[in-house]
Amino acid sequence: MSDKPRVLVVGSIALDTINCPGGRCEEVVGGSATYFSIAASLFAPVSIVAVVGEDFPPEALEMLQSRGIDTTGIATKPGRTFRWAGRYEDDLNAAITENTELGVFADFDPEIPDDARDAEYVFLANINPTLQLSVLEQMNGPRLAALDTMNYWITRTRNELLAVVNRVNALVMNDAEAKMLTGENNLINALHQLVELGPEYAVVKKGEHGAVLVGRDFYFVIPAFPLTFVADPTGAGDSFAGGFMGWLARTDDVSPANLCRAVAYGAAAASFTVEGVSVERLASITLEDVEERLAKLGEMSRF
Amino acid sequence: MSDKPRVLVVGSIALDTINCPGGRCEEVVGGSATYFSIAASLFAPVSIVAVVGEDFPPEALEMLQSRGIDTTGIATKPGRTFRWAGRYEDDLNAAITENTELGVFADFDPEIPDDARDAEYVFLANINPTLQLSVLEQMNGPRLAALDTMNYWITRTRNELLAVVNRVNALVMNDAEAKMLTGENNLINALHQLVELGPEYAVVKKGEHGAVLVGRDFYFVIPAFPLTFVADPTGAGDSFAGGFMGWLARTDDVSPANLCRAVAYGAAAASFTVEGVSVERLASITLEDVEERLAKLGEMSRF
Repeated sequence: MSDKPRVLVVGSIALDTINCPGGRCEEVVGGSATYFSIAASLFAPVSIVAVVGEDFPPEALEMLQSRGIDTTGIATKPGRTFRWAGRYEDDLNAAITENTELGVFADFDPEIPDDARDAEYVFLANINPTLQLSVLEQMNGPRLAALDTMNYWITRTRNELLAVVNRVNALVMNDAEAKMLTGENNLINALHQLVELGPEYAVVKKGEHGAVLVGRDFYFVIPAFPLTFVADPTGAGDSFAGGFMGWLARTDDVSPANLCRAVAYGAAAASFTVEGVSVERLASITLEDVEERLAKLGEMSRF
Repeated sequence: MSDKPRVLVVGSIALDTINCPGGRCEEVVGGSATYFSIAASLFAPVSIVAVVGEDFPPEALEMLQSRGIDTTGIATKPGRTFRWAGRYEDDLNAAITENTELGVFADFDPEIPDDARDAEYVFLANINPTLQLSVLEQMNGPRLAALDTMNYWITRTRNELLAVVNRVNALVMNDAEAKMLTGENNLINALHQLVELGPEYAVVKKGEHGAVLVGRDFYFVIPAFPLTFVADPTGAGDSFAGGFMGWLARTDDVSPANLCRAVAYGAAAASFTVEGVSVERLASITLEDVEERLAKLGEMSRF
């Protein structure tokens, strides 16, 4: 393993069937860990811990490996890979789930390979909070750990979620989740309450309206990169998190000013994801492409 | 009249009854021209052209005059002042109208006093587009004219609206109106199409998500000032427009860079309006208060 600070992501790998403005795709590679790792790999070395079934296409694994992503933590189990089918209608911020087949993901029990336990930056993508906690306990003291979650865990396993929330440095979730977790209708209050739950920082993703970062004594906001066509919003949030964590690992700097910059990189990375169906656009870009959008984002918010 | 560049606003003056998170108020002064002029008067001399009924409280007129606002263009007609009653529920971006009584506003036919015809900056608030056009025709070549509109005129008097849109330099409307006027679901496309309708600039207000300005070859975005409590969203858009036009008049500079800055002033001014019921908070602030929020807005979008 390289000596550079490493990002570890634990999450889902899925086969997605999506109907979106960019067209229809069937059983293409998706899942939170996939989008996250592709985005993060633009910036820093990445290890994935996830599970796939025996039907998982080897080309998809090779695509990740070709980006230098460490896939030794991807377990292949007897059974079918997690599948998700969904579509988007007028509101591109809201996916309409048509079908979910958990397959081997139902029994996911993340085991962190020895090498990956030293990763300095850990991202717990949206999985059962009990598993998120078990990942944290396997790690050798990361410099920064962050987690995402979703309405399902907020309502069904609230106590377990609060326990792991209290153990991470940063939360990364969308606006609806932030409001649901805190019971606050005002997003600014929700943000302030998130950082009362334990983490030093909360990042809230607002889709086409950008993202917000709060710490105990600062507030940062970045617009979404303006796009005239959104092909497929799937994975935008995970790509955002990948850009955010990737930048932190690349710079190995967790100062508030650099967290703001990391949020901007997240927004820039996510803007590519939604321009193509599945991971096609995200997987085609370079760090220079991201830098270019970042510079434009800076220009368009300067006054 | 002062030699400084002047802002003219033509719009409604109303008596509002509002149920909002900040409480309930009955028959307090409101209307687009009221909010606009109070905000703009922080920056530059302002003239209002509007109509009220014989029942309009003299104190309200005096409140405007005490701010140096020229009210000679406010006609008092036999009958009742325009009244609006509404409430806000969970979505603070959407007022629910409970009652509208047009009163003397039904026959509003704006006549611009001689002195005010020389105003350099003209804002046509949300009124019948035929009246907006008649105002423009009474003016002696303003430096910059802008207009706001609403769904009612977009659907019922589309051709008249497009005629006056083609005659102004800038559009100021909310995101739903921009999408409706252009028939575009993607806001970025809608913005680009707005500037194809004639104006050089389009400003779109997005409530808690801030505002966007586009020109033919630039894009600028400003977040809303983060507030933990919104007492009453009424008038936020008109105060925004007042801050925007007020700053342009104060600086007498219509360069793209200064338009961006004007949008930021608009966002800062609007943030005060929503902190109080009716105009109470907006009418209590100074230009220094606005400058302070502007500086904070700048800090929180820098990376």
